[in-house]
Amino acid sequence: MPQIRNCRIAGYGTYLPEHVVKFGAQTRYRVSEDESQLGMLTAAARDALDRAGIKAEDVQCIIGASAAGIQPIPCTAALVLEQLAPFGVAAAFDVNSTCTSMITALDIASRYIADGTYESVLITAGDVGSRFLNPEQAESFSLFSDAAVAFVLTATDDPAQGVVASTQRTWAAYAHDTEIRGGLSRSPAQMYADSDPADYLFDMNGRSALRNMLTVLPEFLAKFLATSGLSLEDMSLVIPHQASPAITIALRRIGIPQEQYIDWVADIGNMVSASVGYVLAKVLEQERVRRGDTVMLFGTAAGLTANALVLRL
Amino acid sequence: MPQIRNCRIAGYGTYLPEHVVKFGAQTRYRVSEDESQLGMLTAAARDALDRAGIKAEDVQCIIGASAAGIQPIPCTAALVLEQLAPFGVAAAFDVNSTCTSMITALDIASRYIADGTYESVLITAGDVGSRFLNPEQAESFSLFSDAAVAFVLTATDDPAQGVVASTQRTWAAYAHDTEIRGGLSRSPAQMYADSDPADYLFDMNGRSALRNMLTVLPEFLAKFLATSGLSLEDMSLVIPHQASPAITIALRRIGIPQEQYIDWVADIGNMVSASVGYVLAKVLEQERVRRGDTVMLFGTAAGLTANALVLRL
Repeated sequence: MPQIRNCRIAGYGTYLPEHVVKFGAQTRYRVSEDESQLGMLTAAARDALDRAGIKAEDVQCIIGASAAGIQPIPCTAALVLEQLAPFGVAAAFDVNSTCTSMITALDIASRYIADGTYESVLITAGDVGSRFLNPEQAESFSLFSDAAVAFVLTATDDPAQGVVASTQRTWAAYAHDTEIRGGLSRSPAQMYADSDPADYLFDMNGRSALRNMLTVLPEFLAKFLATSGLSLEDMSLVIPHQASPAITIALRRIGIPQEQYIDWVADIGNMVSASVGYVLAKVLEQERVRRGDTVMLFGTAAGLTANALVLRL
Repeated sequence: MPQIRNCRIAGYGTYLPEHVVKFGAQTRYRVSEDESQLGMLTAAARDALDRAGIKAEDVQCIIGASAAGIQPIPCTAALVLEQLAPFGVAAAFDVNSTCTSMITALDIASRYIADGTYESVLITAGDVGSRFLNPEQAESFSLFSDAAVAFVLTATDDPAQGVVASTQRTWAAYAHDTEIRGGLSRSPAQMYADSDPADYLFDMNGRSALRNMLTVLPEFLAKFLATSGLSLEDMSLVIPHQASPAITIALRRIGIPQEQYIDWVADIGNMVSASVGYVLAKVLEQERVRRGDTVMLFGTAAGLTANALVLRL
């Protein structure tokens, strides 16, 4: 069993746009004209800092964990820091593994906290998926919500608290199941007029993405639990990435009973990088999980990437 | 003095486009039509893997450390992994602190190696700055080169080898000195026709960037050395980010003698995220530094961000 990386969630915060779009029984949230990715991330971060009782000026590190950031330069973390504390000074960088970026950031942050480099790390995650959706792809157009989530991770004196185990894998063979091809070096915006406009929008091959997710995920999780010396029975709650309505199929195949995991896809949709964190923040708020409980966060992302992380609260 | 994070550079690789552009005595390298960021990163990575004697299929983690990536989704690391090993499986994620992304990635990778999570991590860095340059901004237009660099970091049995100390800070007050505002959520490519085209290009306020860099850098480095129990005399070589011809002024102010650091700005320009790593790879190739030597990498980036990292080879 790997050594626990001691840290604790000292605060969490969320932001959900008010504007609701319904697709049949599916509820989605989308930004209005006066809302932005930066505004959502900043609001979630303020909420998390308030709960943690930490001033923005005192945060030692901020990690931006969005799938698509605010602008190519500088990094999203620097722009959020500017909003929180115009004269703030902190380590600031972005981490990107698309929909599971928040898990990757938590994994990285836990190392910086556990080894004493930083006493506090603020992680922000969130995307405005609606900016990039293609109305001609009904499946993805009706799937995504805009949202943001933030966590303040701090040191802890409790030797049982922290990241118990974590893992991450990308299967390159499935790199093109889910893409936004345009906007950066491959097809910069200047080429927009001469390109296929769809190249600049979200492009998901839903059938292929589902098939490949079902191919890799059960074995990935089984191996993770085995090498970590953990079992599903150790988990107070399992929080999968709310990727699509198909998570029910995936979790049945993995053998996780319905009462042990959260499926809010109908109510909140796929929140891209905010997805897993948003659910974690809400179950903490609802006191559905408490200090001492063990939660497993996991999910798949474009790449095809899978992340899993077990956290003792 | 912080504990050394044991790891070693098992291989390095570089890619420089053949096409040369001269601005007076300044030499710059720019991609041709048939070259791309993905191609450059992949070539540098193959070079690094060859030197390390590690097959692409055996790399356990790949970190993409570019300022602006290939496409918004999936991450650059996943796309490079696909080129290196079409059926490859490895952890893959991106890390972004603009021009110093490679140092941030090295800092993160050293933690994963030192704690035994991975035996090998491949880091790729590199940008096609020329894709984003504004011909109307003479200073930046004549400053950048396109290039890529890669390192294979592995575990080591030598307790003296590895990252001796590292630090990173962002000063939010200077977040807008250096920007590319368009291409992602703030101004997606779809808005290009209705936007200021300059918003999608590199925008540097050179005077402000220089003044702020000179304001923060000397104190940043002095504090880093003091808290790490290190002094400039410990360094076999200092490798600053080749930001601009002004690095001479900055290094004089910091008090680093000319013979102790590398200034190749006239010959290679600012290679964005590849800059520091490219110089490190070249001095390793030239055997100007060898096993047992201590090198300090540092630089400033958009953010305004500063990184420093001391590596015992």
